Order: sequence, then C-alpha cells, then structure tokens
Amino acid sequence: MSAPFQTLAQFRDLLTQMPDADVAARVAAGGRNSQLTKPPGALGRLEEVSIWMAGWQGREKPQADKPQIVIFAGNHGIAARGVSAFPAEVTVQMVANFQAGGAAINQLARTYGADLVIKSLELDRPTADFTQGSAMTEADLVRALATGWEAVDTGADLLVVGEMGIGNTTAAAALSAALLGGMVSEWVGRGTGVDDAGLHRKAAVVAEGLARHGVALSDPMEALRCLGGREMAAMAGAIACARHARVPVILDGFICCASALVLARCVEGALDHCLAGHVSAEGAHPRLLAALNKEPLLNLGLRLGEGSGAALAIGVVQGAVACHNGMATFAEAGVSDG
Amino acid sequence: MSAPFQTLAQFRDLLTQMPDADVAARVAAGGRNSQLTKPPGALGRLEEVSIWMAGWQGREKPQADKPQIVIFAGNHGIAARGVSAFPAEVTVQMVANFQAGGAAINQLARTYGADLVIKSLELDRPTADFTQGSAMTEADLVRALATGWEAVDTGADLLVVGEMGIGNTTAAAALSAALLGGMVSEWVGRGTGVDDAGLHRKAAVVAEGLARHGVALSDPMEALRCLGGREMAAMAGAIACARHARVPVILDGFICCASALVLARCVEGALDHCLAGHVSAEGAHPRLLAALNKEPLLNLGLRLGEGSGAALAIGVVQGAVACHNGMATFAEAGVSDG
Repeated sequence: MSAPFQTLAQFRDLLTQMPDADVAARVAAGGRNSQLTKPPGALGRLEEVSIWMAGWQGREKPQADKPQIVIFAGNHGIAARGVSAFPAEVTVQMVANFQAGGAAINQLARTYGADLVIKSLELDRPTADFTQGSAMTEADLVRALATGWEAVDTGADLLVVGEMGIGNTTAAAALSAALLGGMVSEWVGRGTGVDDAGLHRKAAVVAEGLARHGVALSDPMEALRCLGGREMAAMAGAIACARHARVPVILDGFICCASALVLARCVEGALDHCLAGHVSAEGAHPRLLAALNKEPLLNLGLRLGEGSGAALAIGVVQGAVACHNGMATFAEAGVSDG
Repeated sequence: MSAPFQTLAQFRDLLTQMPDADVAARVAAGGRNSQLTKPPGALGRLEEVSIWMAGWQGREKPQADKPQIVIFAGNHGIAARGVSAFPAEVTVQMVANFQAGGAAINQLARTYGADLVIKSLELDRPTADFTQGSAMTEADLVRALATGWEAVDTGADLLVVGEMGIGNTTAAAALSAALLGGMVSEWVGRGTGVDDAGLHRKAAVVAEGLARHGVALSDPMEALRCLGGREMAAMAGAIACARHARVPVILDGFICCASALVLARCVEGALDHCLAGHVSAEGAHPRLLAALNKEPLLNLGLRLGEGSGAALAIGVVQGAVACHNGMATFAEAGVSDG
C-alpha cells in the first residue's frame, strides 16, 4: 500500500484521524469471556489480551494466526563515536543474516507462524551524527515514515515491529530523554554490551545531542528527526499504519518503544492499539514502559532487538485467543458455575 | 509403561536412583550458544532454557516439538467442608469438558502442538477428609503414584503435568505448610475464588489437619498420604518417571508445585529436571517457588490449574529451542563478533 502522505504535515494530520477500537466487539468478547468454563478472571492477562484483540479487530472472536513481523534496519552516524560494542558494519551483516534465515527472529517467526519482512533503510547513508546536526532532513524522515507505513500488511491480524541498527540504543536514549526528561544517565544503558568507557561515551554523546538541539526537541516529530534513526521513524510509521487499519501491535524493546513514544507524545491514546510484548534487560526499558503506561507480557531478560521479545509474545497471544475462541461455555459443557 | 514399583518402599528407592543431566551435552550446547549471531547473553532466559533442555535430553540441539501434557483429576473429602467456590461435582464435569475438548488446556495443547492425556483417579471415591483421618491409605497412594508414572510418554521431549480437583488448593496449602512450616494463613489462598468466609474455613481446616497428623508429617511421603489427593500423588509419580526417562518437565501452579515439593523434600535435587512455567495469582505460589528455588518463566496472573500456565510456557521453550538450533554462528553468517 502506498503511504497516504507525502509531507510531514500530512503525516501529522493522519495521527489526529486515528480510528478507535470497536466497542461493540469488545463488549461482546467480554460477555463471551464471562461464560467460559473457568473461574472468573482465572486466565489472568490472557483474558484482557483477548478482549483487547477483539476490540481492535472488530470481532467477538479475534484471530492471531496471520501475524506479521517487520524488521527495519538503519545506520547511525553516531555509531562512529564508539557508543556500541559492535562495529557499524554489523548492521548490514545482520540484514544479510536475516535474509539468509540465520538470525533469532527468523527462528521465532517460523515457530509462531509469522510472516517476516526485512526492510533496509539506506544503510549506505547513515544518519548524521546528532551532536553535529540533525540526524535526518525532513525529506529523510518522511521517506522513512512512508517505508514503515508501506511495509505493513493490513490483512495481518497482529503486527510486530523490530529493528537492527548499530548505535540505535544511543539514539533511543537521546529521544527518550528529549521527550520525557530526567537524567541522561537514567536513559543510557549497555545496549549490545558496551563496556564502562563506552557507557560514559554514550552518556556524553546523548548530553551533547540534547544541548545541540535544545528547544527544537519540544516537538516529538522534530525530536525524532533530530536524534532518531531511519529504522525508528519506519517503526513509528508502521505503528501508525497499523492503527489506521486497526491491526493490533506488539511492541518490542527499548528502541521500538522509544519510536512508539513519538506517536504517543503527538496524540494521546496513539498507542491504544499496542501491547508491550516484554520488558528487556536494557536498563531504561522499564522506565519507558511506565511512561507509556504499558505492562509487559513477558520478562525474560532479552536485550537483542530484532523484534525478538515481541515475537515471543505472539505465542502467548495465540494461546490467549485460542482459549477465548475455543473454550466451551458453562452452559455448553454442563459445568456448574459456582 | 508399567510402573517399576508395587510398594511405597520401592518408589522411595527409585527416588534415590535418579539419573542426572548429561554434562557433555550441556557443555556442547553452551559452546554452541556462545557462537550464535547475537551479543553474549542477549537472549536472556531463552539461552538458559535451551542449555538446560540440552542437558536433560542428552543432545547439543534439544527438541520441543513433541510435548506431552497430562492432566490428573481427583476428588477431595475436604471439599465437603466448604473450602471452594465451586461444588465438588465440578471435578467430574470438568473432566467431561476436557474429554470433549472444551477447556482452556485443550486449546493450549492444540496451540503448542502438545499431546494431551486426561487421567481421572477414582472420582467416585474422594479422599478422606484429612481432619478426620489420612486422606489416603498407603495402597491408595501407591496406586496414584503408579497412575502418574504410567501416564508419561517417555518418548516426549517435554512434559507438563496439571490437575483438576475441587478442594485441592486446600490440600496443597496443608501439604506446603506441613513440609515448609510457616503460618497457615501464609499458605491458604482464594483458589478458584472463595470468599472471605470460605478463606477462613480453609485456614481452619488446614490447621485442624496439621494438628490431627502431627509428627507423621515430618516424612514427606507420609504428608502426601495424610493430606494430599490422588491427582497430587499422580503428579509426583509422573514427575519422578520423567526424571528417570530424562524428560524435562514444566511445573504449573500452586498444586503442581506442592506435589513436586514432596519429591524435593525426599531427595535433594529431585526437581533439577523441572522448570517453573509460571507464577500464578494464588497467593502462596511465589513462596512455594522460592522454597523450590525456581524462577518462573511467565507471570500472567493465571490461577486456573489444568496445567495452563505450564502449557503457555511450552510456547516460550519452543521459541528458545528454535533459536538455539536454527541460528547461524558468527562464522557461518560472516558477522563481526564485536
């Protein structure tokens, strides 16, 4: 699908015109849930997930057998500042690994029956070092948002967006600090495993970036343009597209959530169609989830990116939906309901 | 498989002759894990799970595509004491629901490709009210242990044991209190949703049971016989059989863990082949998991029983194993390893 915007202003307009969940479907699903052969509430968060899915899909019995996973890859000028445990060329090498089927996300996509799409965003043109200038031009930003939007299969019943980009925990930390405030040190973490010296460099680079762009950062889309990466903009575009198509989204880790945060800061409720798949081991992810008011489904100590935590959560959502759709009611089963 | 014991003494002997994990397979799996295309440790608990599975299955690349779920059902004399939100006839009604495919566990088994087996244990002969006498005779106990042992498919690559039995959170609370001490009120919870008056009755019944059996409870198998249920003994028997066959087990909620606790109290390390699938919403489950020194994979607020939380964890284990087996190494993928 071609993105229905050519300018940033048009994209901003689309964010103000987002559909809400189908209340009737959600109510019907809640009614069904209350009749299923289990004590009330005994399936815990699975019940909440199924009813939420029903609302966004607009049907009493939601489905989760056609999930789509889209991984966006981008390169960051900031990577040259020694903020990562891995060299910048790993981004393109990992894209080749995704394409060859050798990465974690390939195995998880297969396990849960998800369609996996890989989108590289101009890997040979890293964003600018955000301590020196804006990471992206407005044209770069719009192009990346559109790439994200266009990658979404609006016929999918569930979407996971993930990323690959050496240096992008630094960009996500800068973006989070810009949009949520707090100390830089609270937003900077070890990413793929940077050492103490690298962690210090990350914090210094983020502080420089925040100082460099100053008041421009008060606008969330401007903050994304100044500090973010193409893969981050693409995730935001994909999440916005999913909302317009009422496809429920599972958010992944720190970088995904920082990208989603841009939408939430533009329009209240912009992430109502999103579920937090997991909380990662990246130090600032819990803080970011709290700011988004999202309770993660899983907590498995992952810190890989690639959409891997959200992909694992697909398996849980599939279990939830299977129970909701397939269980007998008390009346059907002839079970006494207490 | 016919159980290799006819007496309780023979079962006790088997507990002292349990095989350990295959160290060479575990080491080989750890070596493989360290070469996969991800930062070290970035798959968090998935890595630990895969390596643990490799050790118990005795192969560098463990499998999780033939899981078995066995649900044991039993009735409890104690149910007549008003300790449950549901009447005792629900046990047999829910067994019919399992057999007809209408319960949560049926949907979860299908979702994760597990073979589901239902074993009813003399539902028309509830255990005795443990405040009046021993819940089971030694013959009852041995028969139930054997039913559990014989239900296990030793060719499965993963086992979940679950239960159904109105009144069994009361039995599990009594057993936990007997084996671990502490205040009765710390072990008694709302089960399927008992009200405040019912909760008081539960606590009183548990205290009566502990006082009634006194010093006999210092032997774990005797405690199981005096306070437990047939489905609980069967779970213990199944877990012991799995250990002898080196089939890894995923533990479910409070009742499953209380049953497993009996083995752990008989022989140190008896549950080394068991993973905690989840922590349930039953109040005392976290305390019980801590006593077992098990960190749960999932925390989704479930309190259903039926093996449902452990079944959900199968999905996570399948994702873990898929990553471990299917990912490319740094050398294979030509990715720089930092």
